Amino acid sequence: MKDTFYQYIQNLQDEITATIEKTDGKAKFREDLWKRKEGGGGRTRIIEKGNVFEKGGVNISAVHGALPKTMQQYFNVEEADFFACGLSLVLHPKNPFVPTVHANWRYFEMYDKNGKIVDSWFGGGQDLTPYYLFEEDATHFHRICKTVCDKHDKSFYEKYKQACDNYFWNAHRDEARGIGGLFFDYCKATEEKQMTDWYAFVTEVGNHFLDAYLPIVEKRKNLPYGEKERNWQEIRRGRYVEFNLVHDKGTLFGLKTNGRIESILMSLPPQVQWVYNFEPEKNSREEALINVLKNPKEWVV
Amino acid sequence: MKDTFYQYIQNLQDEITATIEKTDGKAKFREDLWKRKEGGGGRTRIIEKGNVFEKGGVNISAVHGALPKTMQQYFNVEEADFFACGLSLVLHPKNPFVPTVHANWRYFEMYDKNGKIVDSWFGGGQDLTPYYLFEEDATHFHRICKTVCDKHDKSFYEKYKQACDNYFWNAHRDEARGIGGLFFDYCKATEEKQMTDWYAFVTEVGNHFLDAYLPIVEKRKNLPYGEKERNWQEIRRGRYVEFNLVHDKGTLFGLKTNGRIESILMSLPPQVQWVYNFEPEKNSREEALINVLKNPKEWVV
Repeated sequence: MKDTFYQYIQNLQDEITATIEKTDGKAKFREDLWKRKEGGGGRTRIIEKGNVFEKGGVNISAVHGALPKTMQQYFNVEEADFFACGLSLVLHPKNPFVPTVHANWRYFEMYDKNGKIVDSWFGGGQDLTPYYLFEEDATHFHRICKTVCDKHDKSFYEKYKQACDNYFWNAHRDEARGIGGLFFDYCKATEEKQMTDWYAFVTEVGNHFLDAYLPIVEKRKNLPYGEKERNWQEIRRGRYVEFNLVHDKGTLFGLKTNGRIESILMSLPPQVQWVYNFEPEKNSREEALINVLKNPKEWVV
Repeated sequence: MKDTFYQYIQNLQDEITATIEKTDGKAKFREDLWKRKEGGGGRTRIIEKGNVFEKGGVNISAVHGALPKTMQQYFNVEEADFFACGLSLVLHPKNPFVPTVHANWRYFEMYDKNGKIVDSWFGGGQDLTPYYLFEEDATHFHRICKTVCDKHDKSFYEKYKQACDNYFWNAHRDEARGIGGLFFDYCKATEEKQMTDWYAFVTEVGNHFLDAYLPIVEKRKNLPYGEKERNWQEIRRGRYVEFNLVHDKGTLFGLKTNGRIESILMSLPPQVQWVYNFEPEKNSREEALINVLKNPKEWVV
């Protein structure tokens, strides 16, 4: 399974970066290959200063070795060997009317002393962070999420949409990071689902990522905007930074387990503002976004 | 003691904000009074878009009530009542040749069921975060720190300078946040020092804060700079954000104990950049700063 899935995310990285470059029309991804001292490494691809994408990363990694101490505590297990691979992407568009997107698909294996797999699971998801709310965009994104889920299990969308709203909650601001999407973790073999079923589900989500996101980019990327919209976008990007550095388990984990810092922090936006106690005007479009972030809603039923 | 010290920080806030306004010559502090639901409140003063100071806060607060659960765990105590007051300041100058400064002076009391003080301590410090290194500025700042310390105890400077280097260590970047200063905490009554001795020490540090910082501001505030220096400053400000949101106990504490978010996050810089894998040129002034941050040095002996 690990080879199959790693092959899958390598191909998916190629497909996504090629398509994003075509959409951007100007910037190209630069590639950095890196090795992890304790075993494994990654292929980081970064786009900067594009026509459409101001900054973004579409990274894969496959790491293995002895499970670090912090991860032993986290998973509540003894010393063990592990393998983990995944694709993580974040795209920060220039135009404030185009939402930021994040997606991740990952696979994890743990081994006993004889190298036998004792546990394995999939995880991942995708979520959208708009700066201005277009209800039809949110609905489109969630509809793709739901369609993909429904093909595999009618209970998935409701469950993983809720998990996404819970996970990307910027608790100290009492608001969501964005308008959500899907979040799933510890997808393990059960009586009902084999690992091959989970593989089919996770790759189905991956295969439809571009369908969920790109139509929104195409629709909004040429909308005119001014300094006001740009300032708002940069202030909201500050909230994105706050979530990733204060609450995001993946980020903190990476920072505390000697991960490759520049690959992890590619998720941070290129230009960000913090303005003291900024409040949007009453009944403004900015306020409309906040209202939805404070009270996450159902986008498809 | 609590009334005396609270009176002291109120006066110090007045003195610092008045002097900073004079130095700035344009922007004025705006004041926000806030109340804490569980007891106490604060007086937040924010300066923005000045001639010299792009953003800053000089805040006092005095809070009391039942010790929050998270603080019980932190201090490893049972249920108790507490009182805490302090002044916290962060100033982010516009000119990249002027360093950012942070300072804090605080006092804490814990009570038993009958309202009797069972424990009390002072804490605080001040530290400098330059974007370009002027060795004479670092030496000046540390010399004031040492002079103030030496008046009270010949062992203080070495100890609190080291504690500052340890505390403001951006572990995931393997570098210091800045060039340090002083950091002290849990300054409690002992056979050698009474609380009045600690009061005398902490207020002496507070009384010399402006002497330590302002001459540096005056010397550098009119130095010409261009886009290159400004970009570097904004990238380095990103490291400041990373420290405060990932490592700073005070910030995380505030965020997780229902503190006033906007008063806590006033410490974040106004405009910030994250550029993937940015590396300063060989033998540049930017690299010279990094070298000192990676290997904290002694500025006065």
